[in-house]
Amino acid sequence: MSDTDADLAPVRLPARDISPPSTISAQARQALAAGALAPAVIWPAADDLEGWRLAAAGSEAIWNPVAERLLAACRASVTTEQIGGVTCYVSTPLGLEPPARARVYLYLHGGALLFGDGIYAKAMGAVSAERLGLTTVSVDYRMAPAHPFPAALEDCVAVYRELLKTYDPAHIVIGGSSAGGNLAAAAALMIRDTGLPLPAAVVLLTPEIDLTEAGDTFRTNALLDVVLKGGLPTCNAAYAAGHDLTDPYVSPLFGDFTLGFPPTFIQSGTRDLFLSNSVLMHRKLRKAGVEAELHVWEAMPHAGFGTDDAPENREIDDELRRFIGRYA
Amino acid sequence: MSDTDADLAPVRLPARDISPPSTISAQARQALAAGALAPAVIWPAADDLEGWRLAAAGSEAIWNPVAERLLAACRASVTTEQIGGVTCYVSTPLGLEPPARARVYLYLHGGALLFGDGIYAKAMGAVSAERLGLTTVSVDYRMAPAHPFPAALEDCVAVYRELLKTYDPAHIVIGGSSAGGNLAAAAALMIRDTGLPLPAAVVLLTPEIDLTEAGDTFRTNALLDVVLKGGLPTCNAAYAAGHDLTDPYVSPLFGDFTLGFPPTFIQSGTRDLFLSNSVLMHRKLRKAGVEAELHVWEAMPHAGFGTDDAPENREIDDELRRFIGRYA
Repeated sequence: MSDTDADLAPVRLPARDISPPSTISAQARQALAAGALAPAVIWPAADDLEGWRLAAAGSEAIWNPVAERLLAACRASVTTEQIGGVTCYVSTPLGLEPPARARVYLYLHGGALLFGDGIYAKAMGAVSAERLGLTTVSVDYRMAPAHPFPAALEDCVAVYRELLKTYDPAHIVIGGSSAGGNLAAAAALMIRDTGLPLPAAVVLLTPEIDLTEAGDTFRTNALLDVVLKGGLPTCNAAYAAGHDLTDPYVSPLFGDFTLGFPPTFIQSGTRDLFLSNSVLMHRKLRKAGVEAELHVWEAMPHAGFGTDDAPENREIDDELRRFIGRYA
Repeated sequence: MSDTDADLAPVRLPARDISPPSTISAQARQALAAGALAPAVIWPAADDLEGWRLAAAGSEAIWNPVAERLLAACRASVTTEQIGGVTCYVSTPLGLEPPARARVYLYLHGGALLFGDGIYAKAMGAVSAERLGLTTVSVDYRMAPAHPFPAALEDCVAVYRELLKTYDPAHIVIGGSSAGGNLAAAAALMIRDTGLPLPAAVVLLTPEIDLTEAGDTFRTNALLDVVLKGGLPTCNAAYAAGHDLTDPYVSPLFGDFTLGFPPTFIQSGTRDLFLSNSVLMHRKLRKAGVEAELHVWEAMPHAGFGTDDAPENREIDDELRRFIGRYA
């Protein structure tokens, strides 16, 4: 960090219109064009509890029907269970055979650490189970503002601790997208620091691992990322609730990975607001001697190309299946 | 490719000033600030021979003193040899012991396929030898406009063919930066298509592998990349000299990698004009089942952070040494 940046000459960029490129699928181009027309979200102030309640209701109005549709089409059996005192959705793809049965993916849903619980978490876990061909345990962790940091993280670690009674840690993967990537990385750090056995691997999809939002692409990809058009400072403040944003359990990018960390898969896109998060994490893990691989998709914004049928979205699953098959 | 992009809603970006981020080294921030103040290069028209002569003279006036200084400081012995009828600079780091002696790095210099011959190629080969700890053969390939495509490519393959008489292909690496990355990838394709044994590995540093410049970052990173502030259409036309820019030997991104390709190391930066080239190549290789790894540095423009002492530049060498040690 530095206060001297203001002294250094900036790049002066003129106003520009940037169309979807020809180098991505037709579905992906349509997703970018649709996103370009969508208005940016206006977030409540960090302490505006009524604002967050309304924002959550708005998010559910959009996402719950999507989740219902995905669940109805999903070829996985889904049960709701209490694991370590936390509500979880356990999804098993139809026809799953050993040795895949020995593996489990502890899946942590996205949603800025304030949204995405309930049926959304359930559907995302079920879809991941089907696409990746393994059992998933999707954690319905407590969320801000009612339950700020460290409630969600503690829930995730409690579920992991309970899973260790059934699963060999060499067959447990922890991962998630966006806020789920924050919790996956932070949980792996807390698991290590607590002296529990590390999971086999960590999956960080366009991860929200720096709540200080210092990375370059928070500015260079602002608005260009049509899904996450700008940073989330009030969401982050509502989650952190006064804790230091550079605490590695709040922003795991600031962790010390030389003390040990599992092999890690990192995904991003060239238009992703969290591209800097992703490349900084990759470099930091590599410098610490951790096995880590980086995959970046052309022109992809945060969380992929909206539509389910964009082939680029399925490529992420292909890489993930290979990665999990190698390490877990 | 599509002619329908104009029908799709663009992202409308306002004018913006973007300072160097706090997430890179002080030296890297200084390099970005210095680059921000430098004017963009005005390139000659493709057929303006006098313009290219003047541009080459201007390039030499800037780079030859840099090359002299690097050569004087370099701890490697350098000899000039004719290999396969092509002038090459063979550099051996002082004190090189077996088994490193058995390896050779066929190094192809950058310079938009029109610049960077002579002492610049010599110095870059010598510096690579010292930093990577192996023998390098830097090819002083013929260049456009006097010698357009496929002269440079044929020179590189001729040198490789000759090296096969001395070196086991399992110990030969072909690589280069920018235009050198173009020739490295194209040479590997030509070597394969000719039926010669493939080299052990390919190194593509911020590679100029798509002379159609279709990638998204040709627009999103224009001007933001302070080294290469925009595309090089007239350079590319002068090099291609009427050949189809989508010919895989001209733009190796269009190659068919399912027919075989060596393990490949790809480097780029989030502000690199060639970031799309890099991620598209990575994805294409992975989909073809080729071992390929992607490394992207935070806020890095084309060809690294100018100053030799930016630690990020040295990190690239660290990763390259490991990669070459693994595959060659």
